Amino acid sequence: MTDETRKPSDPRRRTFLRNASLLPAGLYLQAHASTSQEQTDNSAPQSTNASMGNHVAPILDTVRVGVIGAGRRGTTILRLLAGIDGVELKAICDPYAPAIDNAKVLMQEHGVTMPDFYGDGDYAYRDMLERDDIDAVFVLTPWSWHTPMATETMLAGKQAFVEVPAALNLDDCWQLVETSEQTRMNCMMMENVCYGREELMALNMVRQGVLGELLHGEAAYIHELRWQMQDIEAGTGSWRTDWHTRRNGNLYPTHGLGPVAQYMNVNRGDRFDYLTSMSSPALGRQKYAQREFPADHPRNQASYICGDMNTSIIKTEKGRTIVVQHDTTTPRPYTRHNLIQGTNGVYGGYPERFALESEGNFHEWQHDTSSLQQRYDHPLWKKLALEAAASIGHGGMDYVMLWRIIFCLRNGVPLDQNVYDAAAWSAVIPLSEASNADRGNSRDFPDFTRGAWRDLPALAVAEY
Amino acid sequence: MTDETRKPSDPRRRTFLRNASLLPAGLYLQAHASTSQEQTDNSAPQSTNASMGNHVAPILDTVRVGVIGAGRRGTTILRLLAGIDGVELKAICDPYAPAIDNAKVLMQEHGVTMPDFYGDGDYAYRDMLERDDIDAVFVLTPWSWHTPMATETMLAGKQAFVEVPAALNLDDCWQLVETSEQTRMNCMMMENVCYGREELMALNMVRQGVLGELLHGEAAYIHELRWQMQDIEAGTGSWRTDWHTRRNGNLYPTHGLGPVAQYMNVNRGDRFDYLTSMSSPALGRQKYAQREFPADHPRNQASYICGDMNTSIIKTEKGRTIVVQHDTTTPRPYTRHNLIQGTNGVYGGYPERFALESEGNFHEWQHDTSSLQQRYDHPLWKKLALEAAASIGHGGMDYVMLWRIIFCLRNGVPLDQNVYDAAAWSAVIPLSEASNADRGNSRDFPDFTRGAWRDLPALAVAEY
Repeated sequence: MTDETRKPSDPRRRTFLRNASLLPAGLYLQAHASTSQEQTDNSAPQSTNASMGNHVAPILDTVRVGVIGAGRRGTTILRLLAGIDGVELKAICDPYAPAIDNAKVLMQEHGVTMPDFYGDGDYAYRDMLERDDIDAVFVLTPWSWHTPMATETMLAGKQAFVEVPAALNLDDCWQLVETSEQTRMNCMMMENVCYGREELMALNMVRQGVLGELLHGEAAYIHELRWQMQDIEAGTGSWRTDWHTRRNGNLYPTHGLGPVAQYMNVNRGDRFDYLTSMSSPALGRQKYAQREFPADHPRNQASYICGDMNTSIIKTEKGRTIVVQHDTTTPRPYTRHNLIQGTNGVYGGYPERFALESEGNFHEWQHDTSSLQQRYDHPLWKKLALEAAASIGHGGMDYVMLWRIIFCLRNGVPLDQNVYDAAAWSAVIPLSEASNADRGNSRDFPDFTRGAWRDLPALAVAEY
Repeated sequence: MTDETRKPSDPRRRTFLRNASLLPAGLYLQAHASTSQEQTDNSAPQSTNASMGNHVAPILDTVRVGVIGAGRRGTTILRLLAGIDGVELKAICDPYAPAIDNAKVLMQEHGVTMPDFYGDGDYAYRDMLERDDIDAVFVLTPWSWHTPMATETMLAGKQAFVEVPAALNLDDCWQLVETSEQTRMNCMMMENVCYGREELMALNMVRQGVLGELLHGEAAYIHELRWQMQDIEAGTGSWRTDWHTRRNGNLYPTHGLGPVAQYMNVNRGDRFDYLTSMSSPALGRQKYAQREFPADHPRNQASYICGDMNTSIIKTEKGRTIVVQHDTTTPRPYTRHNLIQGTNGVYGGYPERFALESEGNFHEWQHDTSSLQQRYDHPLWKKLALEAAASIGHGGMDYVMLWRIIFCLRNGVPLDQNVYDAAAWSAVIPLSEASNADRGNSRDFPDFTRGAWRDLPALAVAEY
């Protein structure tokens, strides 16, 4: 799975989708999802399928899980899943032998029943998907595998949980939407940041009207990752680096954008309308390669085209604005911005701070958020705080996300993020690329919900 | 001068421009500046006039000054000018009688020779401009008077120093450029923030290559000014408020943008290429009016259309990006962002902070800038630090700016900002308005320098 660049043009995926023998009985894919070219008009294809907006899957007593991908991310997720009640790890798939070995040790350490392992090539996951004793599949693989693996998971009658981003182009976004609607299987993008303490608290504050009427948000993935270029044979950098030679836009928008979209009830009363985007020059990775590798090294023979800093602005149907930035190259401190602004003031991250007219002096940032936490810590966080604090994985957000997924599946509760969220948040990748290439002229977001956003109530997680 | 909304459509200005009897001998305006409609194609009109890029005015021993506008801003500037060697205040003009009274007291307090006063109506400044004993005129009036007064100042054979913004639409930007080129009079927009200690230090750091190759900048005018809506009969809010009912875009871009443009050598090796812009909903001023005024008050009968937060992105010819924000309505702390990012790291303001790869750990913001100040405080700041610290006016930046202006005029040094800077920085107002009204599709900047930006050397101030 190290050569990610092969996958997007691999015809086998679409062949697979058209191969009726692989579809569960009674299911078929409409023409759009299986054969359309990349959309250019951004209009929504017609469909008679019901919305998956607040879809509730049949209640499960035990969630039988298959995992595709046991690398860096897979290791974290496997360790957490192994400790959550009601989870039965049935199968783990990875074509990279050391990853399988590592996963076996993990399972032994956690004392769980040893799952089956699939490691015979890039497509061994298809053997796993043919099993009838798996309810949910976690897709934790390089980016370009997300859409085909999630699609095949749903076609195999299993709930799909897919790492970010769920898709890399609009055609794939639509494929996820249409497959989910036709199979009635969920496709949730595992945007873990939606389950961070700060993000959940901000969501709670917004729901309680603390910020007033929402106006504007700011999101980012500013995370210096040049060091990943040292991954040559395996590891994230072995495939991630190549994207910087292939596309120029926001390659990875959802960690910052997902929470802001939820503050604004995107796809639940509001919707991304259009986007504009501009990238800075692409200088940093070439400089890093020159410093770190011999002149004849592939890292020095590559041409890095993805601007070091990409900035996009999204406009929503309700007229709100969201700034979204991407920079994994410049030496500067990490931030996701996580800023949300309303008529009563503003809350932001990195560092955590707020200023509210209703609380007096809004001319100075307030950095002591303990009083906010006392009043607005989210019920989900308060319930899980001890376990989250003791867990691995991004300050507890991974644990809370996985706990919540399993809770929803076992209790007949709609998932907090649906396939429309996965599509809309991921669509920033191709739309930012297209806008940047066209002198910043804007691009419309498709309405992946086909109008259902107008009637879907606000996010259920706030009611937990 | 309280009814600013009258001026932009006032035909007398263009009549004045066409009135050859008012022009100094030998000067005339080409057709474009006097009669053209608002530009739509953004191409530069042809001209045979030489560039004013690094124009040096004839050396003055004493700078004889006239001031138009003795309100809030005028008071600060008058007090500072009264204390600078080589300045002779010859005349002060304001049609608002209390402003004249205030100015007389100021002059007495400073013990300077009493200037003449002009206060007979909105156009008394024309009488002042007819004097032949004034070298430079400072235009410190409401926004819509800036372009006509600066234009008439140049036509009267005097150097024009005009408050921000210099112009409100592209036609007026061109008028300033063409008038300056034809009269060979300088037109400098007094962007005082370019003379702040932090901004001068950042400029010095950039010039010395501390940040590496520049990639991206961020600028803002986020300054809660709803309180100015209490100004009803006089004061800034008495006219500024009306702009929020008339235009939707970035109304006031230059305080944040000017310094960033200078870091990037805009108009001196680089150039603003195009811009995209989106505004949030306009909710805050209506809410404020409802809270503060009776229902039948004009503040409650107005319709506020300027989005509370406007965000624009500018792309330069060299591919760099600049985020520019405007928000004078939301209750949140003041910031101009003042962020500049290069391949070696980033420097930002509010709070002042930096992260540089060449200085070790760039994963955490460094907030102690004392070591930067020791190494990179700008020579101009170091020379004037004591006087600046003791002065009124935005932490000393006003004093440094005025000192520098007078120094340049008395020593045959080109001014640090020329008419092309005034035009390009101010052009963000109409271009952001047009882009926002067109779903964020981008608008091209005119090349006000007509190609001269390619050859003009970097900003002289760094060489002081």
